[in-house]
Amino acid sequence: MNAEIRAVTRPTFTGTVGVVLLLGCLRVLCLNTQLLPRQGAVTYTVSDSISYKTYYFEQQIDHFGFLENGTFKQRYLLNEQHWHIEGGPILFYTGNEGDITWFCNNTGFMWDVAEELDAMLVFAEHRYYGESMPFGQDSYSDAKHLNYLTSEQALADFAVLIKYLKEKIPGAQQSPVIAIGGSYGGMLAAWMRMKYPHIVVGALASSAPIWQFTGMVPCGVFYKIVTEDFNKSGVGCSETIRRSWKAVDNISSTDEGLEWLSREFSLCSPLKRKEEAVGFKAWLQETWVNLAMVDYPYEANFLQPLPRWPIKVVCRYLTNSAVPDKPLLHGVAQAVKVYYNYTGSAQCLNISQTATGNLGYIGWFYQACTEMVMPMCSDGVQDMFEPQTWDFAAFSEECYAQFGVRPRADWAGTAYGGKNIKDHSNIIFSNGGLDPWSGGGVTQTISDSLVAIMIPDGAHHLDLRYNTNYDPQSVLDARELEVNYIKLWIKQAAKTP
Amino acid sequence: MNAEIRAVTRPTFTGTVGVVLLLGCLRVLCLNTQLLPRQGAVTYTVSDSISYKTYYFEQQIDHFGFLENGTFKQRYLLNEQHWHIEGGPILFYTGNEGDITWFCNNTGFMWDVAEELDAMLVFAEHRYYGESMPFGQDSYSDAKHLNYLTSEQALADFAVLIKYLKEKIPGAQQSPVIAIGGSYGGMLAAWMRMKYPHIVVGALASSAPIWQFTGMVPCGVFYKIVTEDFNKSGVGCSETIRRSWKAVDNISSTDEGLEWLSREFSLCSPLKRKEEAVGFKAWLQETWVNLAMVDYPYEANFLQPLPRWPIKVVCRYLTNSAVPDKPLLHGVAQAVKVYYNYTGSAQCLNISQTATGNLGYIGWFYQACTEMVMPMCSDGVQDMFEPQTWDFAAFSEECYAQFGVRPRADWAGTAYGGKNIKDHSNIIFSNGGLDPWSGGGVTQTISDSLVAIMIPDGAHHLDLRYNTNYDPQSVLDARELEVNYIKLWIKQAAKTP
Repeated sequence: MNAEIRAVTRPTFTGTVGVVLLLGCLRVLCLNTQLLPRQGAVTYTVSDSISYKTYYFEQQIDHFGFLENGTFKQRYLLNEQHWHIEGGPILFYTGNEGDITWFCNNTGFMWDVAEELDAMLVFAEHRYYGESMPFGQDSYSDAKHLNYLTSEQALADFAVLIKYLKEKIPGAQQSPVIAIGGSYGGMLAAWMRMKYPHIVVGALASSAPIWQFTGMVPCGVFYKIVTEDFNKSGVGCSETIRRSWKAVDNISSTDEGLEWLSREFSLCSPLKRKEEAVGFKAWLQETWVNLAMVDYPYEANFLQPLPRWPIKVVCRYLTNSAVPDKPLLHGVAQAVKVYYNYTGSAQCLNISQTATGNLGYIGWFYQACTEMVMPMCSDGVQDMFEPQTWDFAAFSEECYAQFGVRPRADWAGTAYGGKNIKDHSNIIFSNGGLDPWSGGGVTQTISDSLVAIMIPDGAHHLDLRYNTNYDPQSVLDARELEVNYIKLWIKQAAKTP
Repeated sequence: MNAEIRAVTRPTFTGTVGVVLLLGCLRVLCLNTQLLPRQGAVTYTVSDSISYKTYYFEQQIDHFGFLENGTFKQRYLLNEQHWHIEGGPILFYTGNEGDITWFCNNTGFMWDVAEELDAMLVFAEHRYYGESMPFGQDSYSDAKHLNYLTSEQALADFAVLIKYLKEKIPGAQQSPVIAIGGSYGGMLAAWMRMKYPHIVVGALASSAPIWQFTGMVPCGVFYKIVTEDFNKSGVGCSETIRRSWKAVDNISSTDEGLEWLSREFSLCSPLKRKEEAVGFKAWLQETWVNLAMVDYPYEANFLQPLPRWPIKVVCRYLTNSAVPDKPLLHGVAQAVKVYYNYTGSAQCLNISQTATGNLGYIGWFYQACTEMVMPMCSDGVQDMFEPQTWDFAAFSEECYAQFGVRPRADWAGTAYGGKNIKDHSNIIFSNGGLDPWSGGGVTQTISDSLVAIMIPDGAHHLDLRYNTNYDPQSVLDARELEVNYIKLWIKQAAKTP
C-alpha cells in the first residue's frame, strides 16, 4: 500500500511569498482575478531544524462510491525523531488547500512541541493540492475530474491514512492521534474529531472559521474585522481607505488619471481602460485583507517579508482622509508598497497577484463553488470597503460558468453541524482577535472539552507558528494551554484504550 | 422542495409473507440463489390504528459530489395525530433495505408510544428501495446507476430531510428528533446519531449488528447462535439438522433419491440433478436462520404465519439424529413445513424463496458487495451447519461478476468506528438473545449514555414490534427502559437548545 518514493532531510526551509488561505475573495467580484496564475516566489530561510521523510500512500479516489475504484498517491511527511514508541502521540496535520511542505514549514508549533510531547509528526497533503493529484495532470481538467475534491473525501483520506500508519509503524497502534490544522486545515481538524472520534482523540483547530457559512454569522463580519484592524492601527487609517475607492473611480475616469495611477503604484502592466479600475480595487481590497491576516507582532515573512505590526507601518501613509484624490492615493500607493516591497527588491507591482504560489487557488475556488460556500458582504459603513451584498444567485452562475457545478449553500451546515456542535468533545478552537476569520470562528467556550482560546493580539493562526522572542504573552499562554489540553487527551486515551 | 403526491389514511395494514432483513446469506454460496425473484405474497390484517400521509421529498442524488446534480423523490410517511406542537418529539424511522410501508407497519413500538411521548412519527424510505428510486426503472441497471446506493448517502438523505421537516412544519423547529430503526435500519439509527448528533438527539438501534464487520467479531458467531436456538428448543434438534446435510448428499446422489426428496419436501420444481443439492441445502440453511430471527413468543406473521415459539414446534420433528437418512429427512421436511405451510394453504414449496417481497434483495447484495461486508463462517462443530470458511477473495470475485464492483472490507470500520464508539452518546443498543444478529451487536453497556439492553428471550428486534399479551416481561421491561431514555434525551434537548 505504501511506497517510500523519496526520503529527504531538509536542512533549510524554502518558503514563498504570497497570500494566506481562505481569502476574502469568495465574493463574486474576485473570483476571476483569483484564477489568474501566481508568480514571483521569493526564497528565504527560516529554520535549520526541520527534517522529515516524504512518503506517498495509495488512496482510494472515491471513498463514497464504488464505480470509480482507482487510486492515487497521497503525499505525507513524517518525522519520528522525538516519538516515544510506548504510547507517544501522533500529531497529525490535516493538510489544507496547498502544498503540504509549505504548511509543514509554517507550522512551527508542531516542531516546537514534538520533544516535550514525545510526538511523531505527520503532515498529510489534501487531495488535489501539491503533489496529491487524483488524476495527475488531468485532475483540474473538468468537473468530472474535480468531482472528488470535497472535504468529506479529504477527511476520509486522513482517516484511512491514520489507520494505515497505526497498523504499519511498529508500536504506533497505541499512539493516540491529535489532529492539528490552521484555517481550512483547522476546520478539517475539528471536523476530523467530529466525524472520526474513533481515529483522533482530539483536535487543535486554529483560526478555523467553521461558522463562516450561510446563516451562521452576519456576512459582513469579515470585512468589519479587517476595518477594525486598520482603524486601531493609526488615526485616519480606515477612513482614508474608505475614501480611496471613490478616488480611484475619479482618477481612473481619464486616460491621464490611469497613467498617473499606474505610475504611482508602479504597476507592471499599466491600466489602459477605466473598466480596469474594478480589478485594481479588488487587488487593493485583497491587499488590506492579507495585511489583516498577517498582522504579526514581529518581522515575518509568511506571505511577504513584512515589518512587525505591518498595519501600523502601512497606516503611517494613511493619516488624512480629507486631502484631494491624488495625495490620498499617493499615500495608498506608499502603503501598498509596504506589503509588496518591504525588501525594496520588487521592480514593479503585479495586480494579478497578492499571495504565495503554494496555495491551490483554483482548487479552493472549486471548493467554494461547491460545499465551502462562505457568504461575504460589505456595507461601507461598518467597514471601509465599497458596499457589496452577498448575491448567491450571481455566485452560483459564476461557479457554473467557471466549473460547471452549482454551490450548495446549506450542505456544510448539514454535514458538519453548524452552530450546534455541543455534543462533540476534545476540540480547541483558537482564534486571533486581529484575524478577520475569527468572525466565523468559535470564540466562546462551549463545554469543558470544546474550548475556545482567544489571542487578542493574534492574527491568522499565530499560535501555530514557531515560538519567537517577540511573541506576545497571549500567544505564549495559548500555546501552553493547547499543550496542556493535548496532554490531557493523551492521558484520557491511555485510560480508555 | 416537497410535494404531497398523495395522502392516504390506511385503516388496515397490508403485510406480505417473507424473510427478515440481513439474511445470513452474505456467504458466497448464497449470493446467486438470493438474486432470484420472490413470489407468493400473502395478505393479512394486523391493525386498525395505523394512519399516515405519504409524501415525496426531492433529494440530491449525490450528496458527496457535484457533477451529478440530479434529484429524486424520496418517499416518507408521516403521522402527527399525537404530536404536541410545543416541543413534542419527532420519532424518525431510518428506513432500511425495503419498502418503507412494510417497516412502518412492522414497527408497532412507534405507534404504541406516540401518544405517551406526544410524538410525530416519520418513516423515511432508504434510497434504492420501495418507491425511492434515484433513476426510476434504471436505478438497478448497472454499477453506474447503483453508485449512489451507500449508507453514507442514505444518512445524508435523512439529515437533509429532517432539517427540511423541522423548517417547514410549523412548530417543528424545537422538536427534538430521535432516530429509531431495526436491523440495518438500527445500524443507520446509531450511525445517524454518531455522524449527525446535531440533527438527532438520540437513537434507538434495535438488533443492529454494527460489529458484524471484518475483524470485529468471530465470523462464526451468527451460525453459532442459530444453532443454540435449536439446541435449546428440543432434545436432538440441532444434532438432527447437523446430520441432515450428509443425508441430503447421500439421498440426492441417485435419481430415485432426488425424486424422493422432491416429493417429501413438496417442492414446486422437483430436483433433477445431484448438483441441485447445493441450492437445496442453502434453502434449508436459510430457513433455519429465518426461524432463529423470528422465534417470537407468540403466533406471528412477520415473515410467515408461524406458531408461537416456532423453533420449539419445528424441533418436535427433529428429535432423533440416529435414524437412517430417509426418516431423518422426513422429519426435516415436516419441520420445514412448519415454516412454509403453517396455515396449510401452500400447494408446494419453492426453494428459490424464503422471505417477503418487501425487502430489496438485489440492493442489499449490492451493499454487501461494497461497504456492508459482513464475514460469515461455519465449522459444523460449534454450529449445526456444513463447514464453510469466509473467503473474501471469492466473495470479491462474485461481487465483481454480479455488479462490476469490489467490496472494501475495512471501510465500514473506518467510517463508523468499529468497536471504538465510546466517544458517542445517547444511543440504545437493544438485542434479543435468540437473535443471531445479536452476535454482531453491542450487548454490553459502554457508558452512561451508550446503553445495551438485552432481551434474553427476544428474537430479531422484538422490542420494535407491537405490544401483545404474550410479550415476555423482558421485552416489556426493555420497551419501558427505551421510553425512559427517550424521555431523558427530550428533557436534555429542552435544556440545551
